[in-house]
Amino acid sequence: MPEPKQVILSGMRPTGRLHLGHLEGVLKNYLKLQAGEALCYFMVADIHALSTEYKVPGAITQNTKELLLDWLAVGLAPEKATLFVQSDVLEHTELFVILGMLTPLAWAERCPTYKEQQQELADRDLATYGFLGYPILQAADILLYRATHVPVGQDQLPHLEMTREIARRFNYFYGETLPEPQSMLTASPKVPGIDGRKMSKSYGNALHLSDSKELVEKKIKQMYTDPRKIHADTPGTPDNCVVLAWYKMYAADQAGEIEQECRSGKRGCMVCKRGLSPILDAIIAPIRSRREALAEHPEQLESIVRDGALRARARAAETMEAVRSAMGWLAVGQRGKEK
Amino acid sequence: MPEPKQVILSGMRPTGRLHLGHLEGVLKNYLKLQAGEALCYFMVADIHALSTEYKVPGAITQNTKELLLDWLAVGLAPEKATLFVQSDVLEHTELFVILGMLTPLAWAERCPTYKEQQQELADRDLATYGFLGYPILQAADILLYRATHVPVGQDQLPHLEMTREIARRFNYFYGETLPEPQSMLTASPKVPGIDGRKMSKSYGNALHLSDSKELVEKKIKQMYTDPRKIHADTPGTPDNCVVLAWYKMYAADQAGEIEQECRSGKRGCMVCKRGLSPILDAIIAPIRSRREALAEHPEQLESIVRDGALRARARAAETMEAVRSAMGWLAVGQRGKEK
Repeated sequence: MPEPKQVILSGMRPTGRLHLGHLEGVLKNYLKLQAGEALCYFMVADIHALSTEYKVPGAITQNTKELLLDWLAVGLAPEKATLFVQSDVLEHTELFVILGMLTPLAWAERCPTYKEQQQELADRDLATYGFLGYPILQAADILLYRATHVPVGQDQLPHLEMTREIARRFNYFYGETLPEPQSMLTASPKVPGIDGRKMSKSYGNALHLSDSKELVEKKIKQMYTDPRKIHADTPGTPDNCVVLAWYKMYAADQAGEIEQECRSGKRGCMVCKRGLSPILDAIIAPIRSRREALAEHPEQLESIVRDGALRARARAAETMEAVRSAMGWLAVGQRGKEK
Repeated sequence: MPEPKQVILSGMRPTGRLHLGHLEGVLKNYLKLQAGEALCYFMVADIHALSTEYKVPGAITQNTKELLLDWLAVGLAPEKATLFVQSDVLEHTELFVILGMLTPLAWAERCPTYKEQQQELADRDLATYGFLGYPILQAADILLYRATHVPVGQDQLPHLEMTREIARRFNYFYGETLPEPQSMLTASPKVPGIDGRKMSKSYGNALHLSDSKELVEKKIKQMYTDPRKIHADTPGTPDNCVVLAWYKMYAADQAGEIEQECRSGKRGCMVCKRGLSPILDAIIAPIRSRREALAEHPEQLESIVRDGALRARARAAETMEAVRSAMGWLAVGQRGKEK
């Protein structure tokens, strides 16, 4: 089988149910990618989750299932992409160990996110050996599938650069084996949470893809609008209004008129919010109902990831054979295909 | 099947052919252990070898075979112990990654051998992420088989203590799962090399278990004796005489008289050395001939380690199931045995 022109690896950490921020920032891009010619590997990065959640790893399993349900519900499809769980493919840890042997400690230490994250998650005790190795594990994830392209946001470019450096070092020592992946910069649109800050699980300001109609309505009612617009007929200044931001995103044709009416005091926030409910529900409802149907058949989900793991492992095994053969480090017994 | 009272894990790095120092210091102990009641796992630590040999890993495969041949030739037997190669059992890297997540970086950094080895092998560039993780990988090796006892020399006690600390930390977080292994202090008799220093591959002063009769004779001729004993009838001072040391080890009944004759000038070094040849050859010859017979059937060796890997993996898989179940981190798909 000829090598496809593009091979894509991308992963998400299982930290809970996905929200509209993920839909806009990540999932729509995944849908576009799987519809194209590229060979796509989408990974639930549960080992990565362990690096920060090791004190309470019990939620990782449930979060992995939630993530997979969200993925399938938005339309990621096993016929178009390989959907798998990182810890189902032991070769991730095998390649990580090999790459770790040749990665200077200083490379891991200088990774900008290492100290940032330690500060951000100060309650977590992240001065661990495993957390320091985070970018090396990420390199193993990517190189294991010989990915040619990795969708990343601007902030993740240093990580990808480290992957490229590790690949170069491997190739320098043992000969050209691991392709250097290219970045595929993805625009990440600003998706506001109900309080006006960036939508994020940790801020508790998210609209989830699995939220019920009633919950969506309730959250819309809580959305931040112009606080000085006390009465419906007070002229508003909706520059930071979350409700208007959502109209702009999902009902761009109405947004201009709505903004006009707000500014001129012809339109109150309640009306505005009531109007947004059906618009957001039209996005969420089909996802939610597919999600509910999928959740009723856990065996289907299991079969999809089992199959995904087999496909991922098949490619991973090819890479590991190439890796060990390049190193001249051939198995004596188990994989014993010595020449 | 009830858990055996003693489970032993021990490993050797594949760095080349074994010598009489290994026979006395390690292998005789292995033979004693496999003859007892304990469940024995003897591992060729090829991933560990990579931590120092990563720039030239090509020799690891050949050295692994040499090590296995030496093991079988001295009498290690697959019916009595599980003989396997570390990299054949991917669970080593899996458990390593998990343990790394919860091991404080400072524990790895304070390991006394870390800086020592870096100084000793100054030409090797050991400031790598993988080399820093060496004692964590060792902990994974031991805990993966739920070893109750680990044969160690005095100098390796800090490593084993680290394994115990990591097991305690795991058990503290997730409940009693991994037994803390006990040390089994093994006397390491001083085995002199032909130059009088400790017998060691890196000194080039070793008598190998695979040396031919002629080579053994040649090396005996080069053995360090009293340099002031110029003529056969010069009275000698054999306190540091390597030849006498070997008589003491393998022909204790003759050693007293020989020493007497040397000191009184009644015996020359040549005679003494000629007499040692058949004694050492009686040790090496049966090992060498079994080794040669084994080397003629590489498929037999492969089948032994293939079988060893299967047995090792069976126990490793039990441990990993217990580990992930204790963490509440259950596989969704591949190993999907959710309750």
